[in-house]
Amino acid sequence: MVTRTVDLRSDTVTKPTETMRAAMATADVDDDVLCHDPTALRLETEMARITGKEAALFVPSGTMGNLVSVLVHCDIRGSEVVLGNNSHIHIYENGGISTIGGVHPRTVKNNEDGTMDIDLIEAAIRDPRGALVYPITRLICLENTHANSGGKCLSVEYTDQVGELAKKHGLKLHIDGARIFNASVALGIPVHRLLQAADSASICLSKGLGAPVGSVIVGSNSFIAKAKILRKTLGGGMRQVGILCAAAIVAVQENVGKLEGDHKNAKVLAEGLNKIKGIRVDAASVETNIFYFDIEESSKHTAESLSKYLQQRGILVMLEGPSRVRIVLHHQISESDVQYTLSCFQQALTGVPDQNGI
Amino acid sequence: MVTRTVDLRSDTVTKPTETMRAAMATADVDDDVLCHDPTALRLETEMARITGKEAALFVPSGTMGNLVSVLVHCDIRGSEVVLGNNSHIHIYENGGISTIGGVHPRTVKNNEDGTMDIDLIEAAIRDPRGALVYPITRLICLENTHANSGGKCLSVEYTDQVGELAKKHGLKLHIDGARIFNASVALGIPVHRLLQAADSASICLSKGLGAPVGSVIVGSNSFIAKAKILRKTLGGGMRQVGILCAAAIVAVQENVGKLEGDHKNAKVLAEGLNKIKGIRVDAASVETNIFYFDIEESSKHTAESLSKYLQQRGILVMLEGPSRVRIVLHHQISESDVQYTLSCFQQALTGVPDQNGI
Amino acid sequence: MVTRTVDLRSDTVTKPTETMRAAMATADVDDDVLCHDPTALRLETEMARITGKEAALFVPSGTMGNLVSVLVHCDIRGSEVVLGNNSHIHIYENGGISTIGGVHPRTVKNNEDGTMDIDLIEAAIRDPRGALVYPITRLICLENTHANSGGKCLSVEYTDQVGELAKKHGLKLHIDGARIFNASVALGIPVHRLLQAADSASICLSKGLGAPVGSVIVGSNSFIAKAKILRKTLGGGMRQVGILCAAAIVAVQENVGKLEGDHKNAKVLAEGLNKIKGIRVDAASVETNIFYFDIEESSKHTAESLSKYLQQRGILVMLEGPSRVRIVLHHQISESDVQYTLSCFQQALTGVPDQNGI
Amino acid sequence: MVTRTVDLRSDTVTKPTETMRAAMATADVDDDVLCHDPTALRLETEMARITGKEAALFVPSGTMGNLVSVLVHCDIRGSEVVLGNNSHIHIYENGGISTIGGVHPRTVKNNEDGTMDIDLIEAAIRDPRGALVYPITRLICLENTHANSGGKCLSVEYTDQVGELAKKHGLKLHIDGARIFNASVALGIPVHRLLQAADSASICLSKGLGAPVGSVIVGSNSFIAKAKILRKTLGGGMRQVGILCAAAIVAVQENVGKLEGDHKNAKVLAEGLNKIKGIRVDAASVETNIFYFDIEESSKHTAESLSKYLQQRGILVMLEGPSRVRIVLHHQISESDVQYTLSCFQQALTGVPDQNGI
Repeated sequence: MVTRTVDLRSDTVTKPTETMRAAMATADVDDDVLCHDPTALRLETEMARITGKEAALFVPSGTMGNLVSVLVHCDIRGSEVVLGNNSHIHIYENGGISTIGGVHPRTVKNNEDGTMDIDLIEAAIRDPRGALVYPITRLICLENTHANSGGKCLSVEYTDQVGELAKKHGLKLHIDGARIFNASVALGIPVHRLLQAADSASICLSKGLGAPVGSVIVGSNSFIAKAKILRKTLGGGMRQVGILCAAAIVAVQENVGKLEGDHKNAKVLAEGLNKIKGIRVDAASVETNIFYFDIEESSKHTAESLSKYLQQRGILVMLEGPSRVRIVLHHQISESDVQYTLSCFQQALTGVPDQNGI
Repeated sequence: MVTRTVDLRSDTVTKPTETMRAAMATADVDDDVLCHDPTALRLETEMARITGKEAALFVPSGTMGNLVSVLVHCDIRGSEVVLGNNSHIHIYENGGISTIGGVHPRTVKNNEDGTMDIDLIEAAIRDPRGALVYPITRLICLENTHANSGGKCLSVEYTDQVGELAKKHGLKLHIDGARIFNASVALGIPVHRLLQAADSASICLSKGLGAPVGSVIVGSNSFIAKAKILRKTLGGGMRQVGILCAAAIVAVQENVGKLEGDHKNAKVLAEGLNKIKGIRVDAASVETNIFYFDIEESSKHTAESLSKYLQQRGILVMLEGPSRVRIVLHHQISESDVQYTLSCFQQALTGVPDQNGI
Repeated sequence: MVTRTVDLRSDTVTKPTETMRAAMATADVDDDVLCHDPTALRLETEMARITGKEAALFVPSGTMGNLVSVLVHCDIRGSEVVLGNNSHIHIYENGGISTIGGVHPRTVKNNEDGTMDIDLIEAAIRDPRGALVYPITRLICLENTHANSGGKCLSVEYTDQVGELAKKHGLKLHIDGARIFNASVALGIPVHRLLQAADSASICLSKGLGAPVGSVIVGSNSFIAKAKILRKTLGGGMRQVGILCAAAIVAVQENVGKLEGDHKNAKVLAEGLNKIKGIRVDAASVETNIFYFDIEESSKHTAESLSKYLQQRGILVMLEGPSRVRIVLHHQISESDVQYTLSCFQQALTGVPDQNGI
Repeated sequence: MVTRTVDLRSDTVTKPTETMRAAMATADVDDDVLCHDPTALRLETEMARITGKEAALFVPSGTMGNLVSVLVHCDIRGSEVVLGNNSHIHIYENGGISTIGGVHPRTVKNNEDGTMDIDLIEAAIRDPRGALVYPITRLICLENTHANSGGKCLSVEYTDQVGELAKKHGLKLHIDGARIFNASVALGIPVHRLLQAADSASICLSKGLGAPVGSVIVGSNSFIAKAKILRKTLGGGMRQVGILCAAAIVAVQENVGKLEGDHKNAKVLAEGLNKIKGIRVDAASVETNIFYFDIEESSKHTAESLSKYLQQRGILVMLEGPSRVRIVLHHQISESDVQYTLSCFQQALTGVPDQNGI
């Protein structure tokens, strides 16, 4: 019998807090398509302030945030975007920038820390003199933190360098900042500084910050004006959206402070797992709330059997391959949950099989 | 000083009721992208039941509902959809089926009652033998009630006929049922019967039913499976979406019964306006909660000046042209609001100008 | 046994003349993708001169000519084009502007003379203030001569009016001038005057002018520069294309003068057919080289059986419906062919059935 | 004063031979859009035979050949293609598969020999269970010979392995065989065997084979039927195209035998250049008619100044970077041209500067 649930699949699984529910229950709302929902306006104003941009726009998801951003920057047919071969946009967003937006992606190898070498980015930018056979490069995308690399942070220095490169070539820079608050907390650098070089960013409120739904994109007034039209085209214009924005405001107010605890829990969990025979995790490289671990071949478990074993004990993880598992911490995972998780892993990898043979 | 607001611009302006707010505050939710939010599941199950379809899917807006539906039916490059030249999809959804989806629209003239002549629809269907120069017709779209015609209802007989035509030519039939509950109430026919001939429908919960956000699309299991992928691609996959679905469930439970009052109020308002010198409205043709009226040339007002006059008295209307105005009733417009509105119109059209000259 | 072939299906069926073949055999050519084929350059320079535009570009077909033109003018995502509901672009080009180019078409009713009412065009242009729900109108398309209306000519006055309308709204005007030389000859007005109001035009050289392959698009230098890139993207960049351009130069030099004869032959044939019992054709309205005729219900023939009957006598026609047939004259149909055709029709409609029962 | 021209920019620069011109001058032609041009039919039948496929289709360019092929295999919205990061389709075709076709590219690193590691290809194929966030992989593309790697040949064994991988995952395999005849001659393996594992291929007739214009795509009957429609959509349907096909038939008949000489000349030129101080070329790795060379930093020339120097002596080369140059041999470069070229290079790199200082 499962006595508790420890959902480590993603930081998207958080449930709205009581404060959020109260905020939603009392939110002042209006039709955000016909005019401007007052609570949406409050959230957008606050997010513009935090990110140091002129304007902001609430969207139903991070996927729409990135899709709208890329398509606004690449609004002319024949555009190309340079982005990481392991970036969320390229790998996990259905190829929507091409299949929906007709934008051609040019990928550059992501390093283990989520960066792409500056010279490789520059080499991927098309020479406009070859426009007869080349698409036109119009955008570079970065991702901070970089999910697929295990939540690694991009430094201000790196981001600024890429920003300079973009300027030099007349390109725009978009940052997929789904977890930019995690980067900010881990680096001790304000969000606006991390985004200073960016023309736009997409920031998720329903990941580590724990809002039930939504992301915000930020940029110049003209960028947001175009984004608003495209959001409508895609079907992301919502009526009394202030309901969701009310919770998002609480998320920004109350939960940024909790991210440091998530990072600490991630470190403790990673270090604990690494001590268990059969599991390999580079605990030293854990910077924020995400890490991956590998199950050694000699282990009695595959990722799948391990996942099943854990599930019976209320622990949910995300499989990333036959022997690779992703772990994500969030504010509804306590230190006690981490210890419980470690003991279940210990038992799974080293204990005697239970009656189900697992 | 405005003492009350009577927002007649659209039925999308309704504010969530106390019951809805309570439902949202206590909704049981989960990550609807990683698994299935229990409250979303409840809403979708209920909507599938009401519409007599296998499955349902919550989407953030009617625009996304229609976009996803058209694109799923027209998932092969080179597809064409036959739809009304005055339909919401063709006129008010940014041309998204083409600009985002690459679907070619072939329009057929909408009659004043929102129908298209059956023989004109058939004439618009491409002969597949001409595929070398023709796109392939894959879909017919109807709209019930038909907004641009003033909320007219499509009869079961008509819809069935179009359904038979679609079957005869191997096409799908999608119904934009943004206000299908209004049609159901006005005709005294259950929703599932009105949608019986349709392969899919998009139904708005944030219009007359008053939910803060969202629509539902319904269809076969395989249609909804494809729609779910496309919803994710477009960025319409939302995490703890049960918050919104909880309000939508209340909307379906509590507000369908209120539509009859809206229709009655629309009739009363239309008849009252028609009696005012300078305003022309075909009150007899008002079937549901929407109507348009024209301001006669001899009147002292244009649509714009009239709208401004009314706005100062808290009455909001939607301009549709220099002398044309749209009125939409909803459950937050009372009989008393109707009388107040009539008296303001009376004064505007026949009274002496106020100190602002209007 | 067929003793001769009279191919009346289209003016695209013409075979290259001896002069054309000689020109192709001796053409000076080079790689038109890497540099500029000298014969292509000659043709393009000449076509720019004839049409009074800055520049020209050879493309493999009229379909590509129109597709490239529309897409260059509508190069920003979310564009709409206003065009005739019976235009070649809308009906016979696979819906490519949407399915390949993502451009949303807004159709206006074509009158019997191929025009669209100016006020209907204006009504179809979107108010940019509604951009949140509207696509952006960027282009108007005309077609001169208008094929589906039976080769009717658009007058200079009409075209200029549409041009002024376009300017007033900041739109571009493209003319599908596949048969603009026919219009020029029929109206006695030079081509450049007919195209004066247009920002671009597509002109077919392989229709009445009899070149084996190709069209030319014309416009400003910047339009053609963009068109050249898009032609390459679509795969229309050809290497030693001077071969085809050499024949096209001959077509322009030698065959414009033959169009008057085609128009005369069309008139004679239409008048003759109209005298045959069972056939109805509005001979008075024949302006150029195309007309349609209807077979009366009382006739012993359907379009299909008539076509089959004629085919056995070497006469090829194009079916346009169960009782509708299209006839197109061209320079390889002689007066004698016209008389032969008339006698075969006479026999078909009024004679005794032959041994095959047709 | 230039006494001769040695155009080494590409094998696309060849001029039609006398036999080709004669064939074009006498070709039997018809309207290939309305019916089937007899000479196009002859070419297509012959190409189907040579490639061992059911059917073939003439297209105006290799770019259209690849574009049509990829789009036919990926005709459902949401498709992804796996292809080389250095492939012609990805680098030199304007990103058309995305910008025109909405297909998402997933690139795999091309090795120096033009292959991609089989396990990397397999890793790039999406797990269909992740369809909610993944596009659907539908196609793998290979390129034989691989231009950007210097005309390297893919072996039968390698191609077959990729074919098996494609089958295992239910994918299609397209081979960009722009220079498949070069591969065939260099490997001593018939074309049909090299394409055996492929569902489709695009083969250029205007490169080494010297036809003035055109490519052919080959595949199953159903593939070609769909390709024919898409060719029309893109504007690649041409009327009396038999003119071009007549030259292409000659190209296939007469020029395949000349490729061996081109390869030999390439080897001689590469070896000769490598002996010149300041130039570095891996002559041993030259397999067919293309190679790249690098200019050493210590040299007195950059690629640009060298190119200018050579141009004054009638030698044209293609710059690929500040110190990198591409050389392509073809049947209109004689052994004597090779020797002349070598002597000019020798003089350029080691001689005294001429009066222009270069």
